[in-house]
Amino acid sequence: MRSQGPTPRTEVRRKADRAHYTRDTIDAILDTASICHVGFVDDGAPVVLPTIHARVGDTLYFHGSPASRMLRHLKTGAEVCVTVTLIDGLVLARSAFNSSMNYRSAMVFGTARLVADRDEKLAALRAVTEHVIPGRWDEVRPITDKEMKATLVVALAIDEASAKVRAGPPHDEEDDEDLPIWAGVIPVETVAGVPVPDAASRDVLQEPGSVIRYRAGHAAES
Amino acid sequence: MRSQGPTPRTEVRRKADRAHYTRDTIDAILDTASICHVGFVDDGAPVVLPTIHARVGDTLYFHGSPASRMLRHLKTGAEVCVTVTLIDGLVLARSAFNSSMNYRSAMVFGTARLVADRDEKLAALRAVTEHVIPGRWDEVRPITDKEMKATLVVALAIDEASAKVRAGPPHDEEDDEDLPIWAGVIPVETVAGVPVPDAASRDVLQEPGSVIRYRAGHAAES
Repeated sequence: MRSQGPTPRTEVRRKADRAHYTRDTIDAILDTASICHVGFVDDGAPVVLPTIHARVGDTLYFHGSPASRMLRHLKTGAEVCVTVTLIDGLVLARSAFNSSMNYRSAMVFGTARLVADRDEKLAALRAVTEHVIPGRWDEVRPITDKEMKATLVVALAIDEASAKVRAGPPHDEEDDEDLPIWAGVIPVETVAGVPVPDAASRDVLQEPGSVIRYRAGHAAES
Repeated sequence: MRSQGPTPRTEVRRKADRAHYTRDTIDAILDTASICHVGFVDDGAPVVLPTIHARVGDTLYFHGSPASRMLRHLKTGAEVCVTVTLIDGLVLARSAFNSSMNYRSAMVFGTARLVADRDEKLAALRAVTEHVIPGRWDEVRPITDKEMKATLVVALAIDEASAKVRAGPPHDEEDDEDLPIWAGVIPVETVAGVPVPDAASRDVLQEPGSVIRYRAGHAAES
């Protein structure tokens, strides 16, 4: 496993036992989270916006309108912090103090760059579509030159990153363990509901492979 | 409905038709999201961390260890941006370009303050516990003075906030509407799995009301 080791910025200080610096762990979290939160500094103040991301190897890509404030900011090479968080469960201890959540989060710090190369841009847009729902890129109408021009793509190298993970049962104070209070974990997960075809697709077209596979991969476990 | 109107910071520029500035809409999103992402500026660079929040009236509260870098930063009155995002569905258009997500997000800007008053601090900690799982505060062992001292609470007034919401079907180009490509929405939701009691609770204690109600409120719809 590749490991980058913590930098002063990525070193997890609180609950350091939850820290992970291996790229396999970080990449798995980035790839599983459907969206990220991008932080940047605008006129001295922090701004945090949700957006779709996609990872290709050692690079994170973001896309949007050329009018996007975030992308216009990022393409100038401004510092950015990208954070993704997956909630896996509510951890109910016998005290509020020791109650927690099970989660997996990853942070990537760095400066982004505009993607000007057409091939890289196309690969990034494909990756973004496939990140949301694998298999969809080959089902949709191919992207046009006009759409390519109307889309801005920026890239962020995954050079400085860390992950933080909590899993498992609550940890109560020893004195609390015999209290007659239920303690444990409520798992939470993201599941897919029944697809809603638009008018023209209804009763005419079968659900495509991407949708069938996504539903199977996001069915409720219980 | 209270409406604050956009400020230069909260005015939604892209997809302005998705913007909402009424507090009822903003509050509902803040209350539904289990966690938020807090952005602040540390040594000139953006930092985005996930954390639990809770709203009491016009105030957002955050809690944690006095050693938390985020809380130590916030309690000095530094500028903060708090963003919450709920994903409601994948919007599959007939082109990648028009594909999207259905979501509800809210942003709150401002400067936080340390909560020193004991009553306000206690109410905030209660709100945080109840935010995660309503009814839990009265089930757990009461908080101790030692735990109160070991917890830092900061408050952020909801003075400058906005929301952005996308709902409904995909919007394809007119020329694409007759293509034989399935289009529609895959709803996604967060559901609760089967609770995992810790060793001491197993076979001895019944699931408490908070857990039963949470599961009922987070059951898969399909």
